[in-house]
Amino acid sequence: MKAKIYVTLKKGVLDPQGKVILSSLPNMGIEGVEDVRVGKYMEVVLKDLGREKAQLLLDDACRQLLANTVIEDYRIEINE
Amino acid sequence: MKAKIYVTLKKGVLDPQGKVILSSLPNMGIEGVEDVRVGKYMEVVLKDLGREKAQLLLDDACRQLLANTVIEDYRIEINE
Repeated sequence: MKAKIYVTLKKGVLDPQGKVILSSLPNMGIEGVEDVRVGKYMEVVLKDLGREKAQLLLDDACRQLLANTVIEDYRIEINE
Repeated sequence: MKAKIYVTLKKGVLDPQGKVILSSLPNMGIEGVEDVRVGKYMEVVLKDLGREKAQLLLDDACRQLLANTVIEDYRIEINE
């Protein structure tokens, strides 16, 4: 089975990478972008554990390794 | 209007960050993950340009700045 994990900065946490992108775009002739927030995106392949067990496992992985839960939120999307 | 951009490594391109995650998980008691690929995820706020113009603009942004199209693919998802 496959899963997707999205890790994003919490609201209110400064995103310097996003700010640099935002200020670079007009120099490239790209006008009209008002905000950019950068996060991480992970594609995971899992053994066939069943939906619930996979959710618990990835939740564990996010809390221990993939996300810094002090400043980041994560979202797990499981596809069979 | 808002958009989401996903930047992922092309198939066949080595992902050292993913490999490190994969080899770290069992040490944390997390068993059953077979593969991890790491990409970037961006949330963009745009002026209300209309769907087509926004798509062209972000396409341009991806090709010029956000993705390295030699080794990365990108996907744009526009939400009104």
